Amino acid sequence: MTPDPLTTAPTAPDPGAVLDELRAALPADAVVTDPDRLTARAQDGSATAPTGAPLVLVLPADTGQVSAVLRVAYAHRVPVVPQGLRSGLAGGANAVPGAILLSTERMTAIRRIDHVDQVVVVQPGVVTKDLVDAVAAEGLFYPPDPASYAISTIGGNIATNAGGMRCVKYGVTRDFVRALEVVLADGTVIRTAPGTVKAVAGLDLTALVVGSEGTLGVVTEATLGLLPAPAPDRGVAATFDSVTAALEAANAVIASPHRPSTLEFVDGEVLAALAAHDPEAGLPVGARAMLIAITDEAEAGLGDVEAYRQIAEAHGALAVDVAHDPERLHQLMRARRALNPAMRAIRGGSINEDVAVPRTRLPELLDRIADISAQTGLPIGTGGHVGDGNLHPVIAFDPADPVQVDAAHDAHTRILGLAVELGGTVTGEHGIGVEKRGALPGELSPRVLEIQRGIKDVLDPLGILNPGKKL
Amino acid sequence: MTPDPLTTAPTAPDPGAVLDELRAALPADAVVTDPDRLTARAQDGSATAPTGAPLVLVLPADTGQVSAVLRVAYAHRVPVVPQGLRSGLAGGANAVPGAILLSTERMTAIRRIDHVDQVVVVQPGVVTKDLVDAVAAEGLFYPPDPASYAISTIGGNIATNAGGMRCVKYGVTRDFVRALEVVLADGTVIRTAPGTVKAVAGLDLTALVVGSEGTLGVVTEATLGLLPAPAPDRGVAATFDSVTAALEAANAVIASPHRPSTLEFVDGEVLAALAAHDPEAGLPVGARAMLIAITDEAEAGLGDVEAYRQIAEAHGALAVDVAHDPERLHQLMRARRALNPAMRAIRGGSINEDVAVPRTRLPELLDRIADISAQTGLPIGTGGHVGDGNLHPVIAFDPADPVQVDAAHDAHTRILGLAVELGGTVTGEHGIGVEKRGALPGELSPRVLEIQRGIKDVLDPLGILNPGKKL
Repeated sequence: MTPDPLTTAPTAPDPGAVLDELRAALPADAVVTDPDRLTARAQDGSATAPTGAPLVLVLPADTGQVSAVLRVAYAHRVPVVPQGLRSGLAGGANAVPGAILLSTERMTAIRRIDHVDQVVVVQPGVVTKDLVDAVAAEGLFYPPDPASYAISTIGGNIATNAGGMRCVKYGVTRDFVRALEVVLADGTVIRTAPGTVKAVAGLDLTALVVGSEGTLGVVTEATLGLLPAPAPDRGVAATFDSVTAALEAANAVIASPHRPSTLEFVDGEVLAALAAHDPEAGLPVGARAMLIAITDEAEAGLGDVEAYRQIAEAHGALAVDVAHDPERLHQLMRARRALNPAMRAIRGGSINEDVAVPRTRLPELLDRIADISAQTGLPIGTGGHVGDGNLHPVIAFDPADPVQVDAAHDAHTRILGLAVELGGTVTGEHGIGVEKRGALPGELSPRVLEIQRGIKDVLDPLGILNPGKKL
Repeated sequence: MTPDPLTTAPTAPDPGAVLDELRAALPADAVVTDPDRLTARAQDGSATAPTGAPLVLVLPADTGQVSAVLRVAYAHRVPVVPQGLRSGLAGGANAVPGAILLSTERMTAIRRIDHVDQVVVVQPGVVTKDLVDAVAAEGLFYPPDPASYAISTIGGNIATNAGGMRCVKYGVTRDFVRALEVVLADGTVIRTAPGTVKAVAGLDLTALVVGSEGTLGVVTEATLGLLPAPAPDRGVAATFDSVTAALEAANAVIASPHRPSTLEFVDGEVLAALAAHDPEAGLPVGARAMLIAITDEAEAGLGDVEAYRQIAEAHGALAVDVAHDPERLHQLMRARRALNPAMRAIRGGSINEDVAVPRTRLPELLDRIADISAQTGLPIGTGGHVGDGNLHPVIAFDPADPVQVDAAHDAHTRILGLAVELGGTVTGEHGIGVEKRGALPGELSPRVLEIQRGIKDVLDPLGILNPGKKL
């Protein structure tokens, strides 16, 4: 039995020697051992995932410094935990005992924005929103928009293959990563691809690294594809008296030629929580579901917005709000944005799930989540990216009540199992991290897990890269 | 030095025992040893790539039979060459000595077309056009359109990560593969992903298998994403008096909000060859380049076609033809379709390249291909997917003249080196196969090659899957 690297410090590296070598390789202020600063960096956005006491925090500014850190780590077999701004929700960036925390916070250069090639070349520590704004200022568009984009880094988005609301039209982070510079476990620097739109000379190492949660290498530069700026968002929010009607309307939008850039759903539990949390929301009585469809296409004639309105009405919408400007649209997104805070407000605590199933299985997923809610006695409100079949059930519980804490974990486990049973996944966009390692054997066959560990061994033979995460 | 599996038969497997076990595992007519039938299957669409004498051709009809074949091959360490309809252009499906040729020609089931999930589930032997037509009959759309789509299989498209003209808008084959069923070297059957739009539980084995040219496993079922049917194609063909003007017009189209579904280019060499080959083509005097831009968006008002026309005129087009119906559009594509036959007609032989570079480097690529043409004394006409930076230079030579044959190979090698020098790839969509193995070390670093071979070893430890190809 291999000891769990999350709870066991590595065998006998010499911490003094490691620190000396790191200090020799990096500027003085880039090697941090202050216990308060280490404690502050030990955890990501997942409140409950296990963590451990790191040895040191390093703040490399460029690829050469990252390579130097990894050479030291490799020589001493010290675990390395790559970190962006730790907005993740699965514990992927949590510290492990004795680890070097490798923060990308000084690697924030936007090196090149190219109009002809429609690419941006960045260091991994760039905040996603800064990247989006920088290319928008040049009339270009980086579509992936994880909800955390104002507090996440592009390196973290790559590590988790982050999704977001626009995936329904544009795809996930991976679809925009043309090439990566990666520092391997032993400090070697590789490029995964030439950065062209198409390239099939090698196996697809780019796609392999995207979503690998820091377990295969440290991304030090990314070449990302861009698009021309779209038209301003416009859209429709519609409420329905049943989940079924809302899901059927969503399917009709997806099947229409009016391709939405965003198609979001919230169920009646969320609407009820929102009505309690935000009495100004003004939701219609009897609303059991809401659907929000947005387009970013330039329109003439009938247009997408009118098509969405007609589809909602044809499916018996209780009310349809139309927004032709960003402010009004922001209003319409109120219920969707309130998913987490409104559900947490019910009992003080919440677990935010991230399951995905084929769209055909969404009615059964939501039915059976309602059963789990009834059986555990906990409110569970669900919302999310219905066009992708990727929903976030939020389990509300009182963290001070041990019975509810147990019930919440039971509901969590049952929802993950349900997603797999319905032909889906335990994580559509948040990643496995530490939180969901236990769910992997339910989703991936023993042989697939063995292949993944074999690939990990090829890239990280000593197992020093983010040990205990993902795999 | 490992012996080259392309020219060396495997060590001492017992062919009689292999054939006996295959006959026990498969229906009688699914195990073929007739020498004429074997010879007919030894080569793909690449006329010149090396091949070898296979042991047997097997025609499994389902996953269980593929698994049985691989169990036999694994037990006896016999090489297995997966084959679709052998339309590839790099020798990827060519026989190797002593191999089992595993044809997917009996695996042609289209198992499920789902409107709500927008997926189609198919066996690998389905001809791409049959798949496209089957989903089109249901109002759905499978965008990847390799030029060979009427004679290629979806399994072959997956093996090479096939491109096509629509990639500029929709992406390559990989972008539509949701999940694969794969039989591993030892006969184990795995699924790479659940088939949902988003899934990040595991490393991306789907993307790893796509483009791996049969070296990691045999794909036995694919779940492919679909879109709603687009509007009918309409477009513009414009001729220019310089390559520069045409490339700048192409960049302007790409930078505009009028996203083309196809953006193709041919240079003056091709137009001259076409004028000789097809005097009816009616090209304007002095044309040194042609650009074809197509849209499949429903339009109102000004529209995409008018935008393309205006861009062409603003860049000094000699002539602009507009097509609002499929027949007229087919006419406009005449020069593009003639790329290979018109160039081959000049001297009787041709080598069709497949390089890709960033769009910023296209002017230099084309300039220096003209230099290579002048230096080798061979006509080289170039056309292709300019929006992706993926062009097909076609080298014309007389196959009966040994001097020209040598010069053609010299030009071939220099064009591959040039693509890499310009930050590009030796293959955008055709693959490495046998033809371009020599070019790999120029494009991929030793460490990247080592990682790829390590991954190959994880999935195929005995090296029996399509040995001597790709890696």
